[in-house]
Amino acid sequence: MLPWKTIISIDRESSKAVYLQIVNAIIREVSQGRLQPGQRLPGTRKMGELLGINRKTIIVAYEELMAQGWIEVASSRGTFIAEHLPLDQAKKLGPSATKIVRPIIDSVLPDHFPAVDLYQTPPPHRLSLNDGSPDVRLTPMNIVLKHYRSAINGYMGPKLLGYGAVEGQLKLREELARYLSETRGLNCQAEQILITRGSNMALFLSFYALLKKGDTVIVTAPNYRSANWGIEAAQGTLVEVGVDEQGICVEEVKRVCEEQSIRAMYLTPHHHYPTTVTLSAERRMQLLQLSEEHDFLIFEDDYDYAFRYDSAPILPLASVDTSGRTLYIGSLSKMLAPAIRVGYLVAPAPVIQQLSQIRRIIDRQGDPPLEYALAQFIKEGELQRHLKKVVKVFEERRDSFCALLSTHLAPFIDFTKPEGGMSVWAKFKYPVDTQKLVTACLQHGLYLNVAHEFLPKYQGLRLGFASLNISEQEEIVAVLAKVFPDL
Amino acid sequence: MLPWKTIISIDRESSKAVYLQIVNAIIREVSQGRLQPGQRLPGTRKMGELLGINRKTIIVAYEELMAQGWIEVASSRGTFIAEHLPLDQAKKLGPSATKIVRPIIDSVLPDHFPAVDLYQTPPPHRLSLNDGSPDVRLTPMNIVLKHYRSAINGYMGPKLLGYGAVEGQLKLREELARYLSETRGLNCQAEQILITRGSNMALFLSFYALLKKGDTVIVTAPNYRSANWGIEAAQGTLVEVGVDEQGICVEEVKRVCEEQSIRAMYLTPHHHYPTTVTLSAERRMQLLQLSEEHDFLIFEDDYDYAFRYDSAPILPLASVDTSGRTLYIGSLSKMLAPAIRVGYLVAPAPVIQQLSQIRRIIDRQGDPPLEYALAQFIKEGELQRHLKKVVKVFEERRDSFCALLSTHLAPFIDFTKPEGGMSVWAKFKYPVDTQKLVTACLQHGLYLNVAHEFLPKYQGLRLGFASLNISEQEEIVAVLAKVFPDL
Repeated sequence: MLPWKTIISIDRESSKAVYLQIVNAIIREVSQGRLQPGQRLPGTRKMGELLGINRKTIIVAYEELMAQGWIEVASSRGTFIAEHLPLDQAKKLGPSATKIVRPIIDSVLPDHFPAVDLYQTPPPHRLSLNDGSPDVRLTPMNIVLKHYRSAINGYMGPKLLGYGAVEGQLKLREELARYLSETRGLNCQAEQILITRGSNMALFLSFYALLKKGDTVIVTAPNYRSANWGIEAAQGTLVEVGVDEQGICVEEVKRVCEEQSIRAMYLTPHHHYPTTVTLSAERRMQLLQLSEEHDFLIFEDDYDYAFRYDSAPILPLASVDTSGRTLYIGSLSKMLAPAIRVGYLVAPAPVIQQLSQIRRIIDRQGDPPLEYALAQFIKEGELQRHLKKVVKVFEERRDSFCALLSTHLAPFIDFTKPEGGMSVWAKFKYPVDTQKLVTACLQHGLYLNVAHEFLPKYQGLRLGFASLNISEQEEIVAVLAKVFPDL
Repeated sequence: MLPWKTIISIDRESSKAVYLQIVNAIIREVSQGRLQPGQRLPGTRKMGELLGINRKTIIVAYEELMAQGWIEVASSRGTFIAEHLPLDQAKKLGPSATKIVRPIIDSVLPDHFPAVDLYQTPPPHRLSLNDGSPDVRLTPMNIVLKHYRSAINGYMGPKLLGYGAVEGQLKLREELARYLSETRGLNCQAEQILITRGSNMALFLSFYALLKKGDTVIVTAPNYRSANWGIEAAQGTLVEVGVDEQGICVEEVKRVCEEQSIRAMYLTPHHHYPTTVTLSAERRMQLLQLSEEHDFLIFEDDYDYAFRYDSAPILPLASVDTSGRTLYIGSLSKMLAPAIRVGYLVAPAPVIQQLSQIRRIIDRQGDPPLEYALAQFIKEGELQRHLKKVVKVFEERRDSFCALLSTHLAPFIDFTKPEGGMSVWAKFKYPVDTQKLVTACLQHGLYLNVAHEFLPKYQGLRLGFASLNISEQEEIVAVLAKVFPDL
């Protein structure tokens, strides 16, 4: 009698079912030659006793082994390791080699792939400061969910739960076309809109489709790093151009275009990421003119158009572009909540069709009931009501935050009150060590997630105020006021 | 006085706000030189009268034009087209060229991109037959939604509505690790699981990361076309191998491997798409052996493992692979509803980290509250309960459907009752014209969506039974019995 209890060691703490532990142990022993074809196995009752396990579990394990061809039952004589093993068959195909269990694939990224940071689970903290997110506590998620529930329980339900259009739910495309037309002068129809997974997928699709290896793309310095990553992943070459208080420096763009062939430009015109500067109307016209003259495309990422406080927003480049070179990108993630992964891309209808073909192989389609619910949310004016409310709240929060910064942090940082958006771009008056800053804040319970990748080169931090009520702002600025003098 | 009513023609039926129509009309006239710098505009009250529009709307339009630099107010003298136009500035930058408004970008797909079909909105119909989808009417979506609502209204709410882990919610990765371990012998931990948007994104990520231009990938003929598209989009080269009643022909695989270098193999082992054949345990071992000998990867797409009727399911290749060459792919879309776009990919932890970097630039992350809700759904045993129930229902539906096919369609088609899955692979006994078939069915109110792309080459249709109750099956087979004799 073999030492079955040793051969088949059962770990009752394991998350793996006991019968599978038995199955795997026997396959392992057979594969490694320690159990031989024809070897007799104890009966199920006996094996159960030997292992201290319910007989029924042994029966299930034996059935599985039999179904897989590892063991055979010879009528009344008992159960045996099969004469004609699955492994034997495999061995006949070529020389066998016993290898240790290890991951063969360990490097999977293409050589040109950028060094992309993943989201880090925040350390424990009492306060946190982001780089400009909406306050999800103000988002009427229960209204969205109400529409979601109505959608799936209504007559459309079975359809919405099945496969759907790659381009997104028609109803949402229609509502967005109307909304963008009414609020931003974007004279577009549903067929010019592709619903994406946040603006991120809109960027990915644009870069994937429109950039070839070595294509040059003008970006601002500093720039939204996700966009830079996307361009680099598509093997595009970044050409950096500076930003001043009117946005990207057009004269510099012009110079670059005269020196080399430019395929495209990536812009966050309506408040520049990370500096929050608004691109002036004049420069918008100049850039459009340049894009015609030098035949380059414009990826217009208008992620925070909705949040404007002092003056009317400036029309997007896409609204005045008469040459069809602008792709317009936005997202409900910023208007509602980052977890609502519904973005949009506006482009000529034939382009939308082709981008959809790419989207088809990436993730097939979006989330039809959620898209349907959001369409209803827009149709009933709830998006507009929500935005009207939060724009007012965010304006007050901007004012109070800027007042706090002026009062408590003036010796350390410079900043300009932003005309819109959800954050302040604060520049240290002296160089600061990033790690020291982050660690010091954390010691006071403050988790910093403020695009501090810009700190070494630009001495800037992007301080998001929109998600903080006034007392949170006071607490956070108090921590910064304690930490800054020691940096 | 200019004919302002003609120049600014207002379309009250338009979805574009009236003030924006005015703004755009004036910008257009200025851009095209019909309104000149210094030209005086009527006052707001006068312009309102001329256009028959509320004065307040004119004020808003003028404010917008002023903000954008198109018009100027000269104290009491009135409002004028600006001397220093945004457009003028642009013109100074280089030679101006008036172009017609047309989309410059019309072709965006890379040359190697496959001809991908988009989802077509079905024509009106009374009955429909798919290629193997679950019955969403049986899916307890209200339980999922209940968990969704609890998640966002609970203490985790604000966190779940913000940005989250690229790899997916840890709680769902943990629950899936346990579930896959218990049900499929996949001995994996949370860090070996990447939550994706359906299995589609898992495939896309695998191909994007692991295939270089010209890499050869063995696929079955016929094969799931989304997989072929993904491989082709990654510039991989398809090498087709036949399928018999035990699955992919291993001898043929072996021959191919001896003739050329193979990078990977794509399999749907656990019921082959589209033929529904189960890959035998013996062949699985042989393929693993070959993958070691010839050093190729295996993309194991086990999309319908959960649906098995006659015998125990066979363990996935990934469960017995000792060399770390298998990437295991599955989805909750097939277990619950196609609209639930939550899939998973199981691979060594370092691979998951690198695939996550790619995922980060595609769509940043999944849908945290939905993932959290699904984790709860699995944790409370609701997924297993649901599957137990529907496997029973689907088995009955398979039996009744096969009986109907035998009774009514035997003269026209051959089929083998599948051991699992959600469809029957039926082969016509004679060649059939696809368009004629589809049109004839539609004339009887039946919309066919049965992977008939295989019809010309393989004479096969993939008839999904799982979403049809018995009376629907009867109606549909009656239509087919009417249509088939005339083909």
